[in-house]
Amino acid sequence: MFPSSLLIFFPASPLSSEKKMGGASSEKTATGYAAHDDSGVLTLYTYKLRQTGPEDVLIKVLFCGICHTDIHQIKNHLGMSKYPMVPGHEVVGEVVEVGPEVTRFHAGDIVGAGVIVGCCRNCGPCKSNIEQYCNKRVWSYNDVYPDGQPTQGGFSSAMTVDQKFVVKIPPGMAAEQAAPLLCAGLTVYSPLKHFGLTGSGLRGGILGLGGVGHMGVKIAKAMGHEVTVISSSDRKREEAVEHLGADKYLVSSDEAAMAAAADGLDYIIDTVPVVHPLEPYLSLLKVDGKIIMMGVINQPMQFITPMIMLGRKSISGSFIGSMAEAEEMLEFCEKKGLSSMIEIVQFHRINDALQRLDRNDVRYRFVVDVAAGSNNASAASSNDSLLIN
Amino acid sequence: MFPSSLLIFFPASPLSSEKKMGGASSEKTATGYAAHDDSGVLTLYTYKLRQTGPEDVLIKVLFCGICHTDIHQIKNHLGMSKYPMVPGHEVVGEVVEVGPEVTRFHAGDIVGAGVIVGCCRNCGPCKSNIEQYCNKRVWSYNDVYPDGQPTQGGFSSAMTVDQKFVVKIPPGMAAEQAAPLLCAGLTVYSPLKHFGLTGSGLRGGILGLGGVGHMGVKIAKAMGHEVTVISSSDRKREEAVEHLGADKYLVSSDEAAMAAAADGLDYIIDTVPVVHPLEPYLSLLKVDGKIIMMGVINQPMQFITPMIMLGRKSISGSFIGSMAEAEEMLEFCEKKGLSSMIEIVQFHRINDALQRLDRNDVRYRFVVDVAAGSNNASAASSNDSLLIN
Repeated sequence: MFPSSLLIFFPASPLSSEKKMGGASSEKTATGYAAHDDSGVLTLYTYKLRQTGPEDVLIKVLFCGICHTDIHQIKNHLGMSKYPMVPGHEVVGEVVEVGPEVTRFHAGDIVGAGVIVGCCRNCGPCKSNIEQYCNKRVWSYNDVYPDGQPTQGGFSSAMTVDQKFVVKIPPGMAAEQAAPLLCAGLTVYSPLKHFGLTGSGLRGGILGLGGVGHMGVKIAKAMGHEVTVISSSDRKREEAVEHLGADKYLVSSDEAAMAAAADGLDYIIDTVPVVHPLEPYLSLLKVDGKIIMMGVINQPMQFITPMIMLGRKSISGSFIGSMAEAEEMLEFCEKKGLSSMIEIVQFHRINDALQRLDRNDVRYRFVVDVAAGSNNASAASSNDSLLIN
Repeated sequence: MFPSSLLIFFPASPLSSEKKMGGASSEKTATGYAAHDDSGVLTLYTYKLRQTGPEDVLIKVLFCGICHTDIHQIKNHLGMSKYPMVPGHEVVGEVVEVGPEVTRFHAGDIVGAGVIVGCCRNCGPCKSNIEQYCNKRVWSYNDVYPDGQPTQGGFSSAMTVDQKFVVKIPPGMAAEQAAPLLCAGLTVYSPLKHFGLTGSGLRGGILGLGGVGHMGVKIAKAMGHEVTVISSSDRKREEAVEHLGADKYLVSSDEAAMAAAADGLDYIIDTVPVVHPLEPYLSLLKVDGKIIMMGVINQPMQFITPMIMLGRKSISGSFIGSMAEAEEMLEFCEKKGLSSMIEIVQFHRINDALQRLDRNDVRYRFVVDVAAGSNNASAASSNDSLLIN
């Protein structure tokens, strides 16, 4: 049950307005869970939303996934955190209001927002529609807009987002299912697309079975790949094969199995977020195979050059995906009936969820039911958490 | 002058035959310079050549380039050297005899042989005509054929090579010019081709200006690229820009110049054969830029993942090139009038040349005039060495 004392923070309308039912120019506030220091604990925080500009979309947040990056930001692991900080970058919500130049979205639409909410629009990457690589990209939280206003993320009643960074959620897709796709799903889909790894019949490896890894198995299987999950222990074998549909499971410490699997994979999606040797995985790749790194690891990774030269192998990285790829990925997932494996958690339990994620106690992604305390309580909100496959 | 005492080892015929003027089945010997231990010194060595088989081409060696790898092999730096070893893998010679199933080559043709003289012909790479990545490839020296016979390289009067591993030298190309193309040239050409980096207008970096690096500048310029040579000191600036035609020269220790050049290159050909940091060079790459490593470095190289993720950059390696690419590269070089910058050295001075190469005292490739002591003395052979641009 949602404590009634908290309900005052979640009015029937997703935001408070000084000019009730006012137009695009009215000033609004939102209430979210914010980190105020690096303790890792979020507390409620009410802040102003910018006026809905000509190209802005005002979104009432329904669901928001929790990504491991959120913990890094909350706890200032990267040394760049500014407080108060409302995290959350896998945002699904309902359009409440749009600016006059917004044509693609209308009130009532179910939409998504992700990791990036701004870019320069003039550089090479922006002009090539890969705005995620713009050096002036604006992160959806723990960042500032060019005018100096802080960005705040999706663990909040509402967000105002430039239409360029808003995607439509396909009508056939459940809102809570869409949330993890906006970061974890896109992070896997984009490099497979970019590096020409979408063809049926390819052999892919997924190294690490967390939020991104589980999505990697699902998306690679949906593309028709033969998928091998590679893990440091045998612990997740049943989950990988029985629940997620992986074809093979390889324990990286099993030297005989690793040797037998050598030269077999077209690619490996490496989701491990801590330092690890690359040689064992490079040796699993075929000639021209690619290992694509997705974990921000601040310690140096190592490799020896003959391992990449004698097989023309590549060590590449990728960072989320473009807005165009996000829409394409959502359509792909809807068409393939792909579902993420999530655990829904009520908004006021967000700190519990962060603690559990920090000890990898989730299969495989927490999605916060942000709106359950307001007038958008979903069927799931009567339980503290609900496992949905 | 060639000491007359040595001439007995270089008869007018490139090889001794038990059955003089015999057919394909006669047994032949060749005389070359061989390493007999890891001292780095080569001495004359006479050995049997295999009978010219149905698909074999018997080549009288005219010229053979000296590659830095030869020193590694001679001195057993990789711990895999077997003696006696006749090095040399940038071989240009004249066809003397062909087996009955050889149709592409005839006596008198000027041909080349390179790093590889055998492969399994059944694996994925072999079937894809990238036999250089066959796990059962046979190296042109310091290796054995499947029947256990040792391979011996091009610092020798003659070689017997399977026709698959022989290329025609275009008629308009000088034999001594072709030699460095067969390893150094191909090593640069192949990855530019494979990774889609042949288009005019690309911006390329060449890191390290040795034998492979100088060829990198020449080939990249011939493709119409804007070429930046990156070096650890200012010492080679004039050579790079004035003699080789590089557009820019960047000193890696000049932090301001490096910062100004950030995000500017489509690719970097990294020819440095010793351990070095990658971050400074990764930061020179544009989004989607590639660093292609060509130096066998047995110490681990390092990188941090955000450097490749936030720009979708790749660290790749490449290993010589295929026989098909070798022919294509030779045609490209002839068409473009591309010449290598070589210093010709007489055969009996090979140890001097190896010592000079070991201390990087060559601009940019030694080519040994193997046949000068026999009946193929070229114009160059009257000098101990001759700089040819």
